Parts: sequence; structure tokens; C-alpha cells
Amino acid sequence: MKDTALYPGTFDPVTLGHIDIIRRATGLFDKLVVAVAENPEKQSLFTVKERVELLEKSVRDIEKTAITSFNGLTAKFAKSIGAKAIIRGLRAVSDFEFEFQMALMNRKIEPDVETVYLMPTDKYSYLSSSLVKDIARRGGEVSCFVPPAVLEALKKRFSS
Amino acid sequence: MKDTALYPGTFDPVTLGHIDIIRRATGLFDKLVVAVAENPEKQSLFTVKERVELLEKSVRDIEKTAITSFNGLTAKFAKSIGAKAIIRGLRAVSDFEFEFQMALMNRKIEPDVETVYLMPTDKYSYLSSSLVKDIARRGGEVSCFVPPAVLEALKKRFSS
Amino acid sequence: MKDTALYPGTFDPVTLGHIDIIRRATGLFDKLVVAVAENPEKQSLFTVKERVELLEKSVRDIEKTAITSFNGLTAKFAKSIGAKAIIRGLRAVSDFEFEFQMALMNRKIEPDVETVYLMPTDKYSYLSSSLVKDIARRGGEVSCFVPPAVLEALKKRFSS
Amino acid sequence: MKDTALYPGTFDPVTLGHIDIIRRATGLFDKLVVAVAENPEKQSLFTVKERVELLEKSVRDIEKTAITSFNGLTAKFAKSIGAKAIIRGLRAVSDFEFEFQMALMNRKIEPDVETVYLMPTDKYSYLSSSLVKDIARRGGEVSCFVPPAVLEALKKRFSS
Amino acid sequence: MKDTALYPGTFDPVTLGHIDIIRRATGLFDKLVVAVAENPEKQSLFTVKERVELLEKSVRDIEKTAITSFNGLTAKFAKSIGAKAIIRGLRAVSDFEFEFQMALMNRKIEPDVETVYLMPTDKYSYLSSSLVKDIARRGGEVSCFVPPAVLEALKKRFSS
Amino acid sequence: MKDTALYPGTFDPVTLGHIDIIRRATGLFDKLVVAVAENPEKQSLFTVKERVELLEKSVRDIEKTAITSFNGLTAKFAKSIGAKAIIRGLRAVSDFEFEFQMALMNRKIEPDVETVYLMPTDKYSYLSSSLVKDIARRGGEVSCFVPPAVLEALKKRFSS
Repeated sequence: MKDTALYPGTFDPVTLGHIDIIRRATGLFDKLVVAVAENPEKQSLFTVKERVELLEKSVRDIEKTAITSFNGLTAKFAKSIGAKAIIRGLRAVSDFEFEFQMALMNRKIEPDVETVYLMPTDKYSYLSSSLVKDIARRGGEVSCFVPPAVLEALKKRFSS
Repeated sequence: MKDTALYPGTFDPVTLGHIDIIRRATGLFDKLVVAVAENPEKQSLFTVKERVELLEKSVRDIEKTAITSFNGLTAKFAKSIGAKAIIRGLRAVSDFEFEFQMALMNRKIEPDVETVYLMPTDKYSYLSSSLVKDIARRGGEVSCFVPPAVLEALKKRFSS
Repeated sequence: MKDTALYPGTFDPVTLGHIDIIRRATGLFDKLVVAVAENPEKQSLFTVKERVELLEKSVRDIEKTAITSFNGLTAKFAKSIGAKAIIRGLRAVSDFEFEFQMALMNRKIEPDVETVYLMPTDKYSYLSSSLVKDIARRGGEVSCFVPPAVLEALKKRFSS
Repeated sequence: MKDTALYPGTFDPVTLGHIDIIRRATGLFDKLVVAVAENPEKQSLFTVKERVELLEKSVRDIEKTAITSFNGLTAKFAKSIGAKAIIRGLRAVSDFEFEFQMALMNRKIEPDVETVYLMPTDKYSYLSSSLVKDIARRGGEVSCFVPPAVLEALKKRFSS
Repeated sequence: MKDTALYPGTFDPVTLGHIDIIRRATGLFDKLVVAVAENPEKQSLFTVKERVELLEKSVRDIEKTAITSFNGLTAKFAKSIGAKAIIRGLRAVSDFEFEFQMALMNRKIEPDVETVYLMPTDKYSYLSSSLVKDIARRGGEVSCFVPPAVLEALKKRFSS
Repeated sequence: MKDTALYPGTFDPVTLGHIDIIRRATGLFDKLVVAVAENPEKQSLFTVKERVELLEKSVRDIEKTAITSFNGLTAKFAKSIGAKAIIRGLRAVSDFEFEFQMALMNRKIEPDVETVYLMPTDKYSYLSSSLVKDIARRGGEVSCFVPPAVLEALKKRFSS
């Protein structure tokens, strides 16, 4: 039980930066639940179902991971699955204030769940889902930023 | 006249962080006008009228305050009510650049009106109206972040 | 060829801060292409055509500049016009992380095109197009922030 | 009593940025005590006595100010002179984290004393005592950054 | 083996903020080695030996911790003791750039050792060893910032 | 004349990050003067003479560069050698405020000399001379951070 961690996010879509964090987190915890946060008010490129599927295809070879989605409060979901920690990737382009706000709020809601920040490898330090979408939308090459399944999905989405 | 200050904001809704700043400002000035800035282009959870009412209910016991709303330029409104200063709360999660931009613009528009930054108590350092709305919307507990009147209004809004 | 630079942006509308950067860039490069980036997904006050016209009227007296618009990836457009560099203005209120992300992505897409940051004169350090629009919309005076042609266009737009 | 404020600092030496804050603060408070903080561990260009004298010469025409020096905790000194507020200038180049840390510590030590942040005029936004000393030391012109008395003192100090 | 973590630092002296991080880290790892980094070039208030002793007295009741000191590269020391992770506390007043630089360098030196960032409880968000020393030196009260053993040591040091 | 640029710095010692900026700058300017800033008050590992020599050995294969040293104000030195621009490398770990302060001061001193910021390749984004010195001093491997001549010099310096 002690070694389950939750890696929550929008994952719209998952990038190689996320995959890098997933690999690092599975090195530290016995089990990692990667969970797409449902947010009906925020517009997304892929549906929650599609995002879960793209994650599943992309982490197939990483042991100890499970993919799911959730709605409601992140801290409460973490507690409900017995997670000891919430994983967050911390990039040079992170919004630290937002991260702090989230971490402290999650702690207020569930004091037992620790927020743990990991750093992706530096070549992904400037990578984000929105950047990937922006480049793909303008016809640019994103194969070095996303897993193959996402590359294919982006091509389909922006082909017509 | 000299001791009137204006505390402008969106207050959608007012939080205990705002109340804390209001208390501190009334310790420094003879009169504090708390004013909801009307911004028809920005979507809000509560109407201007509702936000004014929630403020009124929440600062009832704080002397020397008056609640109102305004549209147009903040600096011009401050001048029109004879305010010597515009009060801003400065949190660890503030957007300093935006704050600076606003303060310098207000100074260009009305050189006599000083922008004065105060810090809320550290337990509200990470609190914001949008965080409160986000937690309330997901069914979380926000009683330690907002005044009772706001708590009730949030419950009504997100109950169905 | 070596001395062409591209100054891309939204320019909705062009401000005196942009004009200042344009002047500085023409001091360093033989030719400067100022290009409005078309972004159909982002709402704008002026159309691309209007923004190009306002730029043309505003830089008329600055030699070595050409105004145009483009869609697609900035780095690819820069390469296509033979630009050696992409010019960016760096203000105290810049979003450095976004700037870094853009620069590194552009470099990945076109390694030969250098991103070059210049600083506007300090009195424009807090100026932005959105601030100008916000003030103009609320009936404030913006004549010290924008070129005459833009001032006129803003007045027309917000007069009724 | 209520309207006394303390403006503490190193003032090694006082710059036109400090003078600007002093003017603004005297517009908000009935009395302003400008106090040189003694810090025997930090090396300074001018002695505490010299810094007090330079301040005295420089604010001679600003009513409602008193110059002094102090050692010990800033918050305790503020309380001892009956100051309602501690004034701090907030520049684009401020170390916000340090400012926050100081303000919260001062509040812990003396809860009744509010820290009030003011912004200098934008042309002094990048000015600091150490910059002035660095330029003067290298033989540069600093007459637009410091009051006449300081200019003279710097010339004497770096002349030989 | 997998569950050992290293918490390196200067600890000059250990504060309640450090203790808070130690407690959190022992909730995530099976063993935590807290290690004073020897740095002969940096002046310190307490010797390495004293800092180790103060740590030992302060974490006596926290299970799974061991106190030591080291010199040389942090990443190499982490590897040598079989640590899977290097723990760092991330406060609002952290120097993020320095943290990133360190984490990436440590990763270059020992790719298997992950840097893990934890947040202290918000009331310690602005606390640092240098602040504590500064307040103690000026005769201020620091009992709410440090463990009893450190309080005593500070009193002795600054008493005469 | 128009195409001379100055790249000033401490270069104690030059790193591969500096070399990267030098290469980029020579792609934009006809001539690049790389100049070690003498600062007798700041302690350095290598003397000015040694730093110039290490630079000379390290940029031997980069055309259009000249190495020198200078004292006094950077802007005045730039002007004296006919430089149109001062080059600065902008890393994720830059002190932006300091950069801005310098650029605006240099502009005040010599309005004709533009400060131009370039970004090093991302793998050097976290590299600095002090980090290199720190690792070398502790016996770590720095061959991937510095040119061969510097590697040798560091080994000699820290060997005994």
C-alpha cells in the first residue's frame, strides 16, 4: 500500500516528457497510477477516453503502471486509491506558484498524501502538451516530442 | 479626505484572504472603499450585484468600510472618490509583472493616487477566488477559505 | 541575405513598444520583415489585414522594414524569407519561460535561425497590446502608448 | 501616532530611487522616519554616520521626515518609535522572496506593524545603490541617479 | 536498498523547516540519511561536528533516520550509500534555478539517483537558517523556528 | 564597423556554454570581440591573463573572433572598439533582473550600443563557470562542460 503513487494530469496528449516522469516515478514507487483528470469546463483536443487510450498505448512497456481517469478533487482521489504521494513534473517552464498552491491545497484536503516533484530529463524541460498541439496544428514535425501512438492521433486530427 | 483608500477587485467571490487585507487596510486608512470592478467581458460565477452583497455581509463587523461597484478605469474611479491610495494584496502567488504594469498605468492615468501593496497573513498566501471555486465545484470543503455568507452561496450554486 | 531578420507577433495593435524594437532591430540588420502571425483560434480586436495596415502606417518612416503576415510555424517562415534571426522584445513583464520554450522549439525546427532578444526603452517596459486595448475600451487615454494611426483606429472601434 | 511610518534600509548611499519612495511615503503618512540599519557584518562604502548625513542633506526639503540609524530587529525598532507601518520600495529588480520573508518575520515579531510596499517611478525601477557604486568606481557618470550630496561624496571617495 | 534517501544540506543550524521535511521524507522512504555537506570555503556559524550533533539531538524521536557528514560531490555520496533519491525541500523562497542546476548536474554525475522535491508545511515556507541566525544575532526570539537544542546553542553563541 | 559585437564576461573559466554563444554571435556579426572584464574586487580562480589564454586556446578554430581584456565600464569599452552590440547569453538560470539592470545602465551610458541576448543550446542551459569550478574542486568529472585547455588547467589547479 505504502508505495502507490498517483500521477494526475490533463495529458492532452501525453508527451515524452510525461513518459519520462512516469519512468522515474516507477523507479521510486511500487505502483504508479497515471490518471487523466476530467475537467468538463476546459476545452481539450482529445476526449478523456482518447487520452486514456493514448496513455495506455504509450506506457505499455513500463511495468507497475495503471492508467485511469477521475473527476473531483485530486487529493481525495489519491486517498481513495491508497496513494502515498502525488507526483508532479517540475520543468524550468513550470508555474511554480500554481504548483505550490495546488500542493498546499491538496495537503489541506488530505494531510497524509505528500506531493512529490520530479524533474524530467533536460531535453524535455521546455516541452508541453499545448506546444505540441500548436506545432502539429501548423503542420510541424512533432515525432521527437510524443510517443508513436500520439503522433498518429495528431496526424489524423490535423490532416483534413 | 486624505485617508480614503480604494480596494478594487473582482471578488468572485470574496475570500478570507480579501477580508484579511481589508482589516489591514482599515488599520492604515480612515476609510476603505471596497469596490467590485465590473468587467462584462470576463465570465464570473456571481453577478456584480451578488458579489457586492456577499462583500457587504462579510465585512459587516469591520468599521470604516464601504462596499460598491464601478466600471471604467480604476485610477479614475479612485480619484473620483477622493482616494489617496489603491490597495492591492500581494501574495506569494501574485503575478508581479501584472501588478507592476497595473500600478504604473494607474500612476500614468492619475499621478496623485499611490498604489499600496499589503501582505495577507501567511495562511492565506496561496488562496485565490478561482481555487475556492474549483474546490467547491468538485464538492470539496471550503469553509476555512471563505466567510459564512460565501460558503452558503457556493453551496447553493453547486448543489444541484 | 545574411542580414535579414524577422520580427513576428500578434500586433493587435502595434504599440510604441513594438516600434521601439523595430527601430533597434533595423540598426542591427540590413532588412527587417515585420510579420503578423495569423492565429484563427485566438480572438483579436483587429483583423490581420487591419493589423498589417496599422503597422504599415506606423513604420512608414523607418527604412529597411517590410510588413507582411504569415501562418504556419514561425521558424519555417523565417527560413523561407531567408531570415538569419527572429527578433523578440524582452520586457520586464515578459513570460520568460514561454520565450525560452519558443526559442528552443524554433531552434529544433530550424537550427540555422537564431532568436535574438532586444530590450525596448524602459518607458515601454510595462506596455502591452492588451493593456492598451483595456484602457481604450474603458475610455482612457492611450495617445502616449500607440502610433497616431492606431490611436485613430482604437477611437473608431470603441466610440459607439 | 497612527500615522508614523518607518523606512529602513542600508542607504549605502541613498539614491534618487530612495528619495522617490520617501516622497511617496510622506504623501501617505504624517511622519516618516528614515533609518539606516547598522549591520557591522556587512561591508559598506560609507559609515553609518556618513550615510545618515547624506540622507539628511538629501531630504532637507521634504517635510515630515526624520533621519536616524538603528541596530537590532527592524520590527522592534518600528514598534519602539510608534510606527504603524514599515515602508519598502518594490522594484522590478526586487528580490520578492526576500521581501516576503522579511515581511512575514517582522509580522511574527510585531503583529501590529504592517509592511507597506510602494513602487518608485519607473525610471528608477532598475536603480540600486550597488549599481551606483559600481559605475562610480569605474569612473562612470552617476549624476542622474543620486542626489548632489551623494554625487560629491562618491567623487571624493573614488577620486584618488 | 531501494528505499534509502539522502537529505543533504548545510544545516547551519537545522530549523523546524528541515525537521518537517525529514518527517515527510521518512514517510516515503525506508531509511533517510541526513548529511551535513562539508564546505570549507563557506563560512558557517557552527562547525560540521556541532551541526551533526544538533541534528542528532533534534531528530532523536524520528525513526529511520541516520545523521552523518560528507565532503565531495553530493551525487557520488548518495550513490555510495545506496540512496535511490536525493531529497530537497522546496519553499516559496527557493532559488529554483539553483535547484534545477544542482538536480541536472547530480543526474549527469549519477543518472540512477533521482532528485525528489518535497514541500514543508506552509508555516515554514519562509523560514531559512540564515534568517534564524540573523534574528538570533539581533537578540530576537527564535523559539518557534528551531528545535530546543538549536535554541540553546544559539543563545550560547550570541549571549556574550 | 557596423558588424562588430562585444561579448564581455568574467570567463573564470570559459565553458562550452560560452563557446556556444560565441559561435552563434559570429553567425550574426562580422567580428566578435570576446573580452575578459577585470574586476580586482571579485576573487577569481584564474588570473585575467590566464583567462584570456584559455579563451584564446578554446576559440582558435572560430573565425572572426578576437580575445582581449578590459577594465572600466562595459558600455564605454564597447563604444571604444566600435561595437554595435553587447552580446549576453540568456540561460534558464540567468538572473534576469540583473541582466535588465545592466542593459538599461549600459544604454544610459552609451545609447548607440544595443544589448543583444542569445540563447545557448539547451544542454548548456544549466551550465555556469561556478558550477564547473565547484565540481572540479570536489574531484568530479567536467570534461563535458569545458574545452580541453580548460580541463587541463582545472586539473592542474586542483591536483595537489
